[in-house]
Amino acid sequence: MKFSKKRTLSLLVGLTLGLGAASSAYSQQSLQDVMKARGLTQKDLLAAAKTYTPTGGRDEYIAVSSGGQSGQLIIYGIPSMRILKYVAVFTPEPWQGYGFDDESKAVLEQGRINGKLLTYGDTHHPAFSETNGDYDGRYVFINDKANPRVAVVDLKDFETKQIVVNPFFKSEHGGAFVTPNTEYIMEATQYAAPYSDDFVPLSKFNEVYRGGLTYWSFDKKEGRIKKENSFVFELPPYSQDLSDAGKGPSYGWGFTNSFCSERYVGGIEKGRPPFEAGCSQKDTDFLHVTNWKKAAELVKAGKVKKEKGMYLIPMKQAIAEGLLYLIPEPKSPHGVDVTPDGTKIIVAGKLDTHVSVYSFDKIMKAIKEKNFVGKDPYGIPIIGMKTALHKQVQLGLGPLHTQMDSRKCVAYTSLYVDSQVAKWDYCEGKVLDKINIHYNIGHLVTMEGDTVDPDGKYLVSLNKLAIDRFNPVGPLHPQNHQLIDISGDKMQLLYDMPLPLGEPHYVVAIKADKLRPEIRYKSGWNSREDKRSKWRTRAGREKIVREGNRVDVYGTLIRSHITPEIIEVQEGDTVSIHLTNLERAEDETHGFAMYSHNVNLSVEPGKTVSATFKADKAGVYPYYCTEFCSALHLEMQGYLLVQPKGYKAEGGFVEGQKYTKADYEKQVKTNVDTQAVIDSVVAFITSHNYKDFPPVVALVEDATDQLGFAAEAKKKAEAFAKKGDWQNATLWAGQWWQYQVKTADLGLRAKTYLEEHGAKKIK
Amino acid sequence: MKFSKKRTLSLLVGLTLGLGAASSAYSQQSLQDVMKARGLTQKDLLAAAKTYTPTGGRDEYIAVSSGGQSGQLIIYGIPSMRILKYVAVFTPEPWQGYGFDDESKAVLEQGRINGKLLTYGDTHHPAFSETNGDYDGRYVFINDKANPRVAVVDLKDFETKQIVVNPFFKSEHGGAFVTPNTEYIMEATQYAAPYSDDFVPLSKFNEVYRGGLTYWSFDKKEGRIKKENSFVFELPPYSQDLSDAGKGPSYGWGFTNSFCSERYVGGIEKGRPPFEAGCSQKDTDFLHVTNWKKAAELVKAGKVKKEKGMYLIPMKQAIAEGLLYLIPEPKSPHGVDVTPDGTKIIVAGKLDTHVSVYSFDKIMKAIKEKNFVGKDPYGIPIIGMKTALHKQVQLGLGPLHTQMDSRKCVAYTSLYVDSQVAKWDYCEGKVLDKINIHYNIGHLVTMEGDTVDPDGKYLVSLNKLAIDRFNPVGPLHPQNHQLIDISGDKMQLLYDMPLPLGEPHYVVAIKADKLRPEIRYKSGWNSREDKRSKWRTRAGREKIVREGNRVDVYGTLIRSHITPEIIEVQEGDTVSIHLTNLERAEDETHGFAMYSHNVNLSVEPGKTVSATFKADKAGVYPYYCTEFCSALHLEMQGYLLVQPKGYKAEGGFVEGQKYTKADYEKQVKTNVDTQAVIDSVVAFITSHNYKDFPPVVALVEDATDQLGFAAEAKKKAEAFAKKGDWQNATLWAGQWWQYQVKTADLGLRAKTYLEEHGAKKIK
Repeated sequence: MKFSKKRTLSLLVGLTLGLGAASSAYSQQSLQDVMKARGLTQKDLLAAAKTYTPTGGRDEYIAVSSGGQSGQLIIYGIPSMRILKYVAVFTPEPWQGYGFDDESKAVLEQGRINGKLLTYGDTHHPAFSETNGDYDGRYVFINDKANPRVAVVDLKDFETKQIVVNPFFKSEHGGAFVTPNTEYIMEATQYAAPYSDDFVPLSKFNEVYRGGLTYWSFDKKEGRIKKENSFVFELPPYSQDLSDAGKGPSYGWGFTNSFCSERYVGGIEKGRPPFEAGCSQKDTDFLHVTNWKKAAELVKAGKVKKEKGMYLIPMKQAIAEGLLYLIPEPKSPHGVDVTPDGTKIIVAGKLDTHVSVYSFDKIMKAIKEKNFVGKDPYGIPIIGMKTALHKQVQLGLGPLHTQMDSRKCVAYTSLYVDSQVAKWDYCEGKVLDKINIHYNIGHLVTMEGDTVDPDGKYLVSLNKLAIDRFNPVGPLHPQNHQLIDISGDKMQLLYDMPLPLGEPHYVVAIKADKLRPEIRYKSGWNSREDKRSKWRTRAGREKIVREGNRVDVYGTLIRSHITPEIIEVQEGDTVSIHLTNLERAEDETHGFAMYSHNVNLSVEPGKTVSATFKADKAGVYPYYCTEFCSALHLEMQGYLLVQPKGYKAEGGFVEGQKYTKADYEKQVKTNVDTQAVIDSVVAFITSHNYKDFPPVVALVEDATDQLGFAAEAKKKAEAFAKKGDWQNATLWAGQWWQYQVKTADLGLRAKTYLEEHGAKKIK
Repeated sequence: MKFSKKRTLSLLVGLTLGLGAASSAYSQQSLQDVMKARGLTQKDLLAAAKTYTPTGGRDEYIAVSSGGQSGQLIIYGIPSMRILKYVAVFTPEPWQGYGFDDESKAVLEQGRINGKLLTYGDTHHPAFSETNGDYDGRYVFINDKANPRVAVVDLKDFETKQIVVNPFFKSEHGGAFVTPNTEYIMEATQYAAPYSDDFVPLSKFNEVYRGGLTYWSFDKKEGRIKKENSFVFELPPYSQDLSDAGKGPSYGWGFTNSFCSERYVGGIEKGRPPFEAGCSQKDTDFLHVTNWKKAAELVKAGKVKKEKGMYLIPMKQAIAEGLLYLIPEPKSPHGVDVTPDGTKIIVAGKLDTHVSVYSFDKIMKAIKEKNFVGKDPYGIPIIGMKTALHKQVQLGLGPLHTQMDSRKCVAYTSLYVDSQVAKWDYCEGKVLDKINIHYNIGHLVTMEGDTVDPDGKYLVSLNKLAIDRFNPVGPLHPQNHQLIDISGDKMQLLYDMPLPLGEPHYVVAIKADKLRPEIRYKSGWNSREDKRSKWRTRAGREKIVREGNRVDVYGTLIRSHITPEIIEVQEGDTVSIHLTNLERAEDETHGFAMYSHNVNLSVEPGKTVSATFKADKAGVYPYYCTEFCSALHLEMQGYLLVQPKGYKAEGGFVEGQKYTKADYEKQVKTNVDTQAVIDSVVAFITSHNYKDFPPVVALVEDATDQLGFAAEAKKKAEAFAKKGDWQNATLWAGQWWQYQVKTADLGLRAKTYLEEHGAKKIK
């Protein structure tokens, strides 16, 4: 029943013929018939052509979206709008083993607040690391609005490496935004609260509740935030909102807007008007202007005091040192966005129909000339709105966020209430185009649209309501990201993309070729700490070490077995299973799940991860590889045996199946036949220019490894046969065949690749 | 290049003509330019046309995929291949509030094993509920391989309603599969283990370790599994695998395959060959044939004993009663699939090149005639393979799973090692077509392909490796589901869809129009228990109730405020916040997150959910709505104030901002102006045939509600104005305006909809 040489060969011939005949299929069915059947217009077809990405195709841009209260990041391709990965950040996620292996648990542990482990975050605004104001493709930062924290994700493996807790804030929204060389990551409060962790009544709101703006210091080489070098601006209890860092001429400055500068405190339950009324009463709120460069110099000069492990700049000091100014801005703004040339700052006031374009030159002039219209209740100088404005442009209802085009002076602003995107000229102050979206757009993103060198091309509208856009899936709807072509004069809607998990708020998009993710780790790697794991082991060096009640299992994973397959411990032991994935092949991830202990690991090639648990109940606990890693993946299994205290082994073991010399010889014959199949595939590959195809070279390397394992198993089988131990001889011969099957699998994949990619025969 | 020049030109002419007013934008850019720029072939364009779904379009089929060790279900549309929702089942997920609100925590609590709360599952094989062997669109069942459990998901709201733990198994893989009227859900073991929870050494593997097959009784009306009516077949310690239920003539029977009937127990760490060798040595394993109908009758007749709260049928009794038979099947099979007419059972042996087609008639004849070739070591009668076979068909390397076409006798089988799908005729036993996939296909699905009435049309290949198919995102790759058009004679690859989270194993796909999900709950609904919540409340009835140290907050959510906005409790209190979403509008979900307490809720329209926590530290804890629900969503906020024990309020409150008569009058003027805008939108809508558009009718209803709220706020404002309380008068006038803004938002959305859908003016 095993595959014979003849059968396999005839199969391979069939394969070749089958491919040649494929063309006839398409002539049977005209494009127009399909369009008619599916109700597509020519406009739809054009849109389809602009987004459809055939198998193996690549997207031009990679978008990183926040997942909102899912606590994750969402990675997708543009223009195909296919989601490539959810990256676990603040929320445990078992597919990635995040929050399940000891190594990633340690990252989540960094995010404890008041001693409590938090198992979600409300992620809002991701930011790419920058060099000279342009994305450098190295890191992404993301904030947690609910529990003020910032996380660092490394783009070489798309894993979360660090979580830092803001020790002053109890709420934040305005993060993460980076300075042009990622010197700092900006994080601003949202809802004011006392800086201390104590109870302070609302009657002391104006005096004790505070907003703030943190500049987190980032070490780009190490890839970690350095809390000890970071500083915080104490700010009034206005609800600070988003920020952007200056660039070019405005380098060294930061801009942070706010709402509820009324400092209203609700109380609808007591008959008072609700927050929404009291927080949107005034016509203007305040744009906060901060000088982070000078602040950093003060910190360096030892002029700022430390509190809670970082530097805190009190308002009084900030005012005295000329680090902090306010400018009125139209009510309840959300986005504040600096133009690529750094000369203008655009603010969209959600409850105003205008965008306001401020001039950095005019702001500097006012500061230089001390041309202020007054001070706020906390003594911060206020620059007059008219003094600082370059222009105000009426766009429509609910302007929210602005992104830039590659064309000079051209910007795109989302209009929440109008459910539109406006394209406009911020130099001349005129509207150029509008497009309807579905429905109620929040943020938007253009390609590298907040860098010094935006790419234009595409725009994604992050709609807050989907309503009727997709097949219904119950009361909780997906979100809808709409892809819009902005390459021409008129914007064109291309695609509706449902977001199946999470509520994204903000997206950044980077040129795909700026990213160089790795496909494997160095062998025995702790990916969360970026170093060799102390728990790593190598093939043949697996061991189980007991020290008192602690048992450390140094194990390995490879297609298709776990070493060890039987783990014996005693009731009450603390067991730590450390697993190293021995694979080098791309995408050869193994998993590890164990019955009833909440143990679930994802072990990518090269990685070492650990699961520590208490074996608190005697019993039998199967474990296995969760990843469908090979044809024999179901057989990649084992047992944890937790023995009662004082248990002594008794009774011999009887094999379920006995094998004879005939069994051995039958297996060997199969193996010889299979080897002939492998040889024929190898002959095909080596007779072609396979070295010109890197994916095939990788497959061949992997296949060579597998054949090496086959040779080892063969040796064992033959040794046992020599001794007349037909049981072990047969089974090792079976194992030899298993490796052959893996080799054949790889070989066939390589052969298909060569055929499909027009490999040429070497003469 | 199938399209002639002439034809392509006519297409482009059609393009221009078809676009009408918008033509100028599109005529600048020809389809051919786009294709050239993006490297698309005519074949690609045809595939694009077959999958591209314009905004608002609907998918023809809804696929439900397991998420593997992500512990979730994945819902996506076919042919657009857009993922619509991840449904949390065994893993907490904060966007859905699953595992965060008390109601869903109670569902997860049902899944405890050995007292341990498990925060993941390894989901494998989803199954739709059936009526007369056809999908009825009511429920989906999904299993957990790691911790033997089955969950029930209701398709009216796509929520997990129940988790049941298998008290006998320690591992399972073969679930869930349903009988033709969902009388039972089949769940089979994978790795054998003792039925007791005690330690049993491996030396007693053959005697004490057991496999098994559970038939979970399902109450379709109540939508819940009834453990007390369910029964389990004790089975030998072979690794049972997938199952399928008979239908038509084979109704009443179940088929379950297995691997490792060698009963091999590994031990590579001791120098023994690994499981993979010992478990794949024999040429055949066993297909288990069970008579569930007769077993159910025995149960009903009181002839089966109960153990651990359900019925257990010992092997001896099953053999004696003629409920259990074995048939050899080619080694290490995975899928077992009954043909739509119920006459044949197809088994794919992963390590054989054949699929084996068994004849139900022949099996019955053998049983009737007691034509057995022997018994297994446990005394189970074995029917000869040749006796039971209809045909064996050689398909290729690694046949795994079979799905049916709408055409009689036509089936599709995945070939793991060959990375192909084979289309073949199971009546005649011949191969009809093959297509290459990328790479290493596991399961596959055709539309309603395991029902009595398959639809054909599309096939999805669940590939286990993605390798180079997508832009790289680090060592952990997405999965790849490939959409294949099977409507013609030759299969055609249409689309590659990355799976960004989880490792799907199995998909089922249902006609979209069989689903009728709800868009809202009845007001005050506990969705997990399907009844009115005892914690519900209504607008104006919000309250805070204290009983000793327990504080119950009965709150509400509506655009854009939370009632109450201030919650005062004392250190040490147990606080339970119960929130009812008062919205009736589709997609108007509110969220609720609170600083540092791991409180995060998703509250869809009508729902009531609760968060219970200990207020163990005095302090200030902001909370807010996480969903971007309206233009004022950032202002939808509040504070939990945890006072120290014995705290007495002191000091008066000073408003951050004072308002005068002039402020009030200014606000009223704004409101009058805004009302004029609303009136003009209303005039537009009512002058058109808006009642012909259900989405617009819904918007108008919602807008009418908002205007009603505006009227209430207006009354309050005017009452305060009358008293000369300009502070409250101004703020209530502001609240009146807030409702106007919401009304305008809805009105504009309705107007846009009418414009885009060709509404006609009423004369």
